[in-house]
This record gives sequence, structure tokens and C-alpha cells, in this order.
Amino acid sequence: MKIVAPAGGIGAARFLRGLRTAAPEAEITVIGNTGDDISLFGLRVCPDLDTVMYTLGGGINEEQGWGRADETFAVKAELAEYGVGPGWFGLGDRDFATHIVRTQMLAAGYRLSAVTEALCARWEPGVRLIPMTDDQVETHVVVDDPEHGRRAIHFQEWWVRLRASLPAVSIAPVGAEDAKPAPGVLDAIAAADVVLFPPSNPVVSIGTILSVPGIRDALAAKTVVGVSPIVGDAPVRGMADACLTAIGVETSARAVAELYGPSLLDGWLVDEADAGVAVDGVAVRSLPLLMKDAASTEAIAAAALDLARELAS
Amino acid sequence: MKIVAPAGGIGAARFLRGLRTAAPEAEITVIGNTGDDISLFGLRVCPDLDTVMYTLGGGINEEQGWGRADETFAVKAELAEYGVGPGWFGLGDRDFATHIVRTQMLAAGYRLSAVTEALCARWEPGVRLIPMTDDQVETHVVVDDPEHGRRAIHFQEWWVRLRASLPAVSIAPVGAEDAKPAPGVLDAIAAADVVLFPPSNPVVSIGTILSVPGIRDALAAKTVVGVSPIVGDAPVRGMADACLTAIGVETSARAVAELYGPSLLDGWLVDEADAGVAVDGVAVRSLPLLMKDAASTEAIAAAALDLARELAS
Repeated sequence: MKIVAPAGGIGAARFLRGLRTAAPEAEITVIGNTGDDISLFGLRVCPDLDTVMYTLGGGINEEQGWGRADETFAVKAELAEYGVGPGWFGLGDRDFATHIVRTQMLAAGYRLSAVTEALCARWEPGVRLIPMTDDQVETHVVVDDPEHGRRAIHFQEWWVRLRASLPAVSIAPVGAEDAKPAPGVLDAIAAADVVLFPPSNPVVSIGTILSVPGIRDALAAKTVVGVSPIVGDAPVRGMADACLTAIGVETSARAVAELYGPSLLDGWLVDEADAGVAVDGVAVRSLPLLMKDAASTEAIAAAALDLARELAS
Repeated sequence: MKIVAPAGGIGAARFLRGLRTAAPEAEITVIGNTGDDISLFGLRVCPDLDTVMYTLGGGINEEQGWGRADETFAVKAELAEYGVGPGWFGLGDRDFATHIVRTQMLAAGYRLSAVTEALCARWEPGVRLIPMTDDQVETHVVVDDPEHGRRAIHFQEWWVRLRASLPAVSIAPVGAEDAKPAPGVLDAIAAADVVLFPPSNPVVSIGTILSVPGIRDALAAKTVVGVSPIVGDAPVRGMADACLTAIGVETSARAVAELYGPSLLDGWLVDEADAGVAVDGVAVRSLPLLMKDAASTEAIAAAALDLARELAS
């Protein structure tokens, strides 16, 4: 079986780990969000790609959900001694090596998709990880800054530095309209038996991937089952509510499904707390959605897969 | 008093530390060798500039003579996990931060001299450190490689990876003939009361600096006193003998003084072991030249300064 999953960071990575266990024989292609990518200290950092790669490759900091296990921070401390920032982005020494390799390869002319493949040759994540695009797409957030007035800032500045404390006036994947899907993305979707949406942020993770011309239409032609990132009226993790509010969407499992819409989404898994939720044109199933350990995560992935198989047949 | 000193790495850095103590009121301008510079992992590494900066700034690994004190090697170990080399160049985590800052500034368009000044703003070395040039000069060594035949390799590959184990057929500062002295170099020399040559490698450190058009002539117009890097028939440290042999010069205090020549050199400090040495047109003094601690190093610097003052008056 061939599975395609567009993916953000932590939530997606954990879901994918469960999916790999639930479907050990499947060929899984992960389309990674690159809208969060940022250049720091002259190095190219791809937080979502790395979170997926490290999680599936066994190198993730499990407690934190991002970054490397057994991490140290000598480089960052030294950069601070030089007065070079930003200090708010937590790059550890082991993590730096990934960005150094990536930056060196990009400078040598390799495309991000080729670089990602090279990095994954070490990590052996057990899935094929492809960035959504090799072109630069950067998620910008417009905020009303008390000091500087209305301005657009990089997603990471809003998310990591400000912890989304300033309400977003709008969120946009800058550059997306001119971006092309990375080599292999459309082919993988075309060949897919099913498409699964992990419980990723529907605005700045999966929404960004869908904003690359061609990807949404290709996915819409497939059987798509999603896992709600919202339980009750709150995100399972992260600050998806701040993103949904910015685009005028209610923070609820139903509203997210409607945001994707029945033209894209065929099935939708919601938590037991949302058991009554109905979405026109979408098959909804409820089950415990908290990925609290390997077994519960695998069960969620298996349920998504079951529903997808059922809808596809 | 204004002092100018062209400088290589470890030997020069230690001598300069002694000089700073011997002449606390002096304005010392150090002209750093950049022929050893190398790009590793996409980062610009300037071994001699950094050795001077770290040593005078209190950050050096004292035992080793290069690199940072209290160093860790997480980044290097990770790069090796990615299969990215070379592994033979010992970059530590703290050191990496320096190269990251430098590379980012160079990419932003700053010249190496400006970058060096910015880095020194943190280290406060107590001297003005200027690279010999902002242009790229790279010392290459021609070797007869048993595997690949006669070929030119980067100085660092010969020096660090091969430990000079393959005899050098020739050594050349590639790019020197088109290089210009960095801003401030010729002005500092013109304003200098005396010029001191630390016991640096006469071929690949001071020799390389002298190969930048304009620098040798400017220095020759001044009172120049050098400290022999050779005691008896061996270098005080390093592998200067391998470099001297490559250019057909005997490994002796006298031969090095003659290599510089009386048109450049006015005074020459040799070790007590070489007390009988005479060089036409050069005032030779002997004293213990082993920089075994702060006091002995300061004494050597003070002797060089005394001889320079005497010759200048």
C-alpha cells in the first residue's frame, strides 16, 4: 500500500511513527512543510523536516518534541558572547551540524529535496521525506506590534519568540503562488492508495503545503482521511487556535474539517469528546485522539488507515 | 611607542602575549597570516587570526596552543555521522561559533578585516589585529603523492592531515601576487617605531605575509628585529624545517636570517645554543629563546624591543 501524508512538525512526526508501526509494509511518502524554514546565523534551518527526520530516525528529544536528544548548547552560548542573535531560537550543537550540512549542500547547488534525501540517508526514517517545494515559501504573520505598529514578521518570530502572544491579523505563505511542488511530490500523490492528514496545524502546516499550486488538486483526487488537531475547543498541542482565529475559523474539530472541505477531505477522525460532530460530505469517526504513548498513537494511525481503506473501496 | 608584528599562529601568539606585558603602553598592530585560511563545511576558518585572538583574548586552549579552552566536539561528531568531512581538522563547538559568525558576516559583504575587528570586539586582545589582506591568498604545497602523483594540496591538508610527512616539492602562496594589503596594514607599518618578527614560520607564516605586494617594502623601511624560530638545527615548535627544506634553505638560525636578508632584517635574536652565529648586515644577540612560561616569554619580547630601540636610535 502506498500512503502519502503532508506533515508539519511534532504532531505529524509522532503520528507518522505510529503509522509506520501500524502499516509496516506500506510505502509512506511524507510531504514536509517548509513554510517555517528560516535562515539563522547564515544557516538554513528546516524545523518541520528535521522534526520528522529526527523523530522517525530515533534522534529526537522526546520530552520536547523537537531538537536532538542529549543536546548541548555550546555554539549558541558562544554566538551570544559575540552578541549575535537571535537567542530565542533554540539551536543545539548536534542540531547545528544538520544545518551546517544542509547549508553547505544548498550552497553547492543541491536542491532542498536532494539535501533532505541526503540527510535522511543517515537517519533512515523509514519513510520517504520530501519537502513540499524546493522554492522558497516563507510563512509571514501580520501583527499589530505595540512598538512598531502593524508589520509582517516571520512565522518563527511570532511562534517561537512571541509565543503567538500578539494576535495575528493575517497569515500568509509568502512565495507560495510561484512555488512548484518538489520533484516526486505529485508523482507520489498520484500513486498513493490513500492520503492521511496527521493532526498538524491546519493553517501553517497542512494549509501551507496545500498553498503550493498543484498539491491541493492532486490530493483532492485521492481518498483523504484526516486526524483532527483539535479536541473540544483546544488544540491537542501547539497554538493552532491562534492560527485559526487569524483566518476567521472557529477552533473546533468540525470547523477544521469544513476548512479543508468535502472536496478535499473524505474521512475525519475526531476525539471521543467530539463524538457528535458531523461534517457535510465527510465520514466522521470518533476515538481517543491523545497520542500519549506508542500504542495509542498506533491505534489512531490504524483507525485513520481503516477509515481510508473503507472509503476507498 | 608603535609596534608592528607580522604573525603566524601559536608561536607568534605567545610571543605577542609576552610583548603586551613587556610594553604595556605600546600600540601594537598585528598583521595576521591568512594563507592558512580554509573553508570547511562551508564555513570560513582563519586558524592564525583565531590563534592570536584567542590567545591574547584569554580563550585559548593553553596546552594545545590552538582552539578554545574547555572545548567540546558535538558538532564535529555529528558531521562525521553525516559522513561529512574532513575529520582531520579539529573544530570544536565553541570554535565553530567563531566561524559561523565570520562566515555570516563575509556573506553579508563585510571584508575579512572588518569581520576580524568585529570578532576582536568581543575578545579585546589588547592589540589591533589586521589580516594581511582581504583578498584570498591560499598557501598550496606541491607533493609527490604515492597514490595520486605530483599534485598541489592546501597547506592545511599537508600540515594537519599529513603532518608534513610527504616532502614538499614547493610551497606557494596562491593569489598573493594579486592581493592588496588589508586597509590599515601599510598605514600601521608607516607609523611604526619598530617592527618585530615573532618566532613564526619564516616560509608559510611571515613569508606568506611578505608575499603580499607592498608589505615587504614597507617593512624594509623600518627597524626590524626578528626572533629566530630555529634553535640549533630544529624548529622551536612546529615543522618549520619541512618548509625550509622545501625552499632549499637550511634549518638554522643563520639561514633563516639570511632568508629574510639584511635589506629587511636589522636585528636577530638567537638562542644561547646559537651564540656564535653571525649574519652579514644584521645585529645578532643571543639569549634563551624557549618561551616556557610568561616570564621567559616576556624576557624574549623585552630583548627584541631593546635591540630594536638600540638599532633605531
